Amino acid sequence: MYFYDLESMEYKEKRENLHVKVITGKNIQIGFGKLDPGFTSDHSHPNEQIGRVISGEIELTINGETKTCTAGDIYHIPPEAHHSFKVLSDRPAEIMDIFSPPKAENIIR
Amino acid sequence: MYFYDLESMEYKEKRENLHVKVITGKNIQIGFGKLDPGFTSDHSHPNEQIGRVISGEIELTINGETKTCTAGDIYHIPPEAHHSFKVLSDRPAEIMDIFSPPKAENIIR
Repeated sequence: MYFYDLESMEYKEKRENLHVKVITGKNIQIGFGKLDPGFTSDHSHPNEQIGRVISGEIELTINGETKTCTAGDIYHIPPEAHHSFKVLSDRPAEIMDIFSPPKAENIIR
Repeated sequence: MYFYDLESMEYKEKRENLHVKVITGKNIQIGFGKLDPGFTSDHSHPNEQIGRVISGEIELTINGETKTCTAGDIYHIPPEAHHSFKVLSDRPAEIMDIFSPPKAENIIR
């Protein structure tokens, strides 16, 4: 399958306050996430991650550097970099995240 | 550098009818391309490529399957898949392309 219509793909619940639409290739995984108010994450992983905020407002800390990110902002999380996300305000945030190599836990049946 | 403001980045000319803004990590390269009318490409490469049309209209053929892609459409070009792009209409198209591994030729000084 070479072409995807994001609108026709259904969000799947990954965990509390997080729904995702994910396309996984050989080296590249691209995920579109809807983060509800209250969503937080705080971890690191060997997968490199580059993302972009589509809508809403998140506070993102990467290796101790913190930025409030809004629509259009791009972030780069190197492999093993500690990072944390927090949704600001009372509406969901939408983000696009790219992982390489793909993260197995993002493949939700 | 963990955060990027795409608006403040300058387009660089990659070749005729193609200007790009590129962020290159270890495994992931993300490029924002402005394809002017007249732009075409027709090739294959070992780098996997996933992209999304931001604006405009392109005709994209991947391994013989052709689709007219407009804003929001996502395409997946597996490693070594033959693919060709053509800008339709008389206005530029904007696309986002992800490559893994990164393509050296996209790093423009």
